[in-house]
Amino acid sequence: MTKAESALLQALDAFMAQKLGQIDNSHLQAAMAYSINAGGKRVRPLLLLTVVSLFNGSVTTALPAAAGLEFVHTYSLIHDDLPAMDNDDLRRGQPTSHKQFGEAQAILAGDALLTDAFGIIATSDIAADLRIRLVALLAQAAGSHGMVSGQVRDLDGEHVVLDLAGLKRLHQQKTGALLLAAIQMGATLAQVSAADFEALSAFGQAFGLGFQIHDDILDVTASTAMLGKTANKDVAEAKNTFVSLLGLEGAQAALAEQVRLAQTALARLSVDATPLQQFLNYLK
Amino acid sequence: MTKAESALLQALDAFMAQKLGQIDNSHLQAAMAYSINAGGKRVRPLLLLTVVSLFNGSVTTALPAAAGLEFVHTYSLIHDDLPAMDNDDLRRGQPTSHKQFGEAQAILAGDALLTDAFGIIATSDIAADLRIRLVALLAQAAGSHGMVSGQVRDLDGEHVVLDLAGLKRLHQQKTGALLLAAIQMGATLAQVSAADFEALSAFGQAFGLGFQIHDDILDVTASTAMLGKTANKDVAEAKNTFVSLLGLEGAQAALAEQVRLAQTALARLSVDATPLQQFLNYLK
Repeated sequence: MTKAESALLQALDAFMAQKLGQIDNSHLQAAMAYSINAGGKRVRPLLLLTVVSLFNGSVTTALPAAAGLEFVHTYSLIHDDLPAMDNDDLRRGQPTSHKQFGEAQAILAGDALLTDAFGIIATSDIAADLRIRLVALLAQAAGSHGMVSGQVRDLDGEHVVLDLAGLKRLHQQKTGALLLAAIQMGATLAQVSAADFEALSAFGQAFGLGFQIHDDILDVTASTAMLGKTANKDVAEAKNTFVSLLGLEGAQAALAEQVRLAQTALARLSVDATPLQQFLNYLK
Repeated sequence: MTKAESALLQALDAFMAQKLGQIDNSHLQAAMAYSINAGGKRVRPLLLLTVVSLFNGSVTTALPAAAGLEFVHTYSLIHDDLPAMDNDDLRRGQPTSHKQFGEAQAILAGDALLTDAFGIIATSDIAADLRIRLVALLAQAAGSHGMVSGQVRDLDGEHVVLDLAGLKRLHQQKTGALLLAAIQMGATLAQVSAADFEALSAFGQAFGLGFQIHDDILDVTASTAMLGKTANKDVAEAKNTFVSLLGLEGAQAALAEQVRLAQTALARLSVDATPLQQFLNYLK
């Protein structure tokens, strides 16, 4: 991580801690804070803040949107881990929320994080028309046209074998939509040109799909200790993954193709894209 | 129900059906539509639309906000009914969402309804500064400062006996906040004066608390068939209710006091409050 990224993350964590500190319900607050502070890589808020910074936008002003993204991502992990869903005991090497607080509190902590994400953005200190575009982008990416739909397809997919188009669609919704939203929210805050918005979106799409292919590859090549969650879980549950569909080498080739697409998109930007280029290290 | 209310509800249902019809995931769509169409009384959207109409605002323009409220209310019922929460098999005389679709789909249908509520309001056809105030009101009422916090207090309360102040606070968050938001969102849309906003808010607070006291009374006086859900459930689970704390007569007196406060507030409005007066029939 660069020094600049590290400073962004400190500011983000301080902002999120301040928001969580305002909650007048210690039980709920503890469950929300536990998952927010569970050691996530903050990829989505970092993407947003990096885009804002790349186009000389105000990082401080962008913190509520970045926090909103991390709240939504964190809620999705809490709910995905529930016994009725993926039934995971470990997340980032620690007990999952329902293991730590019980199922009811885990569901409610997720619900509160999701709801508060919109509240934090809606009450942030930027022009109303920017705030509402951020809310719209986040809701579109997270709801029935995005992440939740992808999760439904993922659960449905445990009973059928998807083809490559179906698998891509699943992941564009489940993982890709929120990563793309992170980039588009950053672009919205920085008020970039239409051409830059398009190139950033193309980068976001390729990065999002590459991110999931990389995750599928790690599931079969990494150990539980390395992952901080149970390895080989996809195979055990006969999930549709890029590895199950294309084989390990095929998945690696598909990942390389997305990295190439992401780099091509970055080359079209009107600014030096080095800070975004570094996100491709997550795919190695 | 008056003819005017009936027309409002038809317009609302058509709007919600249109929004649900745009979801490109039949499994998710079916679970969301099942609960939206499960025969709810639509008290919250009706309150909002009645306030808008009372102050000569545009009801058509207010439909997205009304739908957003009903989406949030419906998500809260789906999650409250889950086995880890209240574990209810019946809701409005029909199988609850998790009984019909399984737990995972029920959780996800709730998540999507909550998220889409904000998306529908954010993309509605009114000025950006109004939309963002509606999003802020809804998030504040539904999240960690409102409904979710109330639900956490309710679950925590199964292990301790609350005093009257604690019970009121629980219900102001769990039930009252969203009813108050309905009224304040309507007042925001109709751009009422500060004095009317204050009187409407006082009405909303009294109505919200009265609504919950009435619910607690019904739990011990009505049958399962009348309620469409399991009667005497609060007693069986040793929940804190106004009846358990004040006795049946005490609860009835507390309800009468809230009705009086609601009527006093309505008398302060600058317009004829008859349409809002009729909502007090829900408390009989």
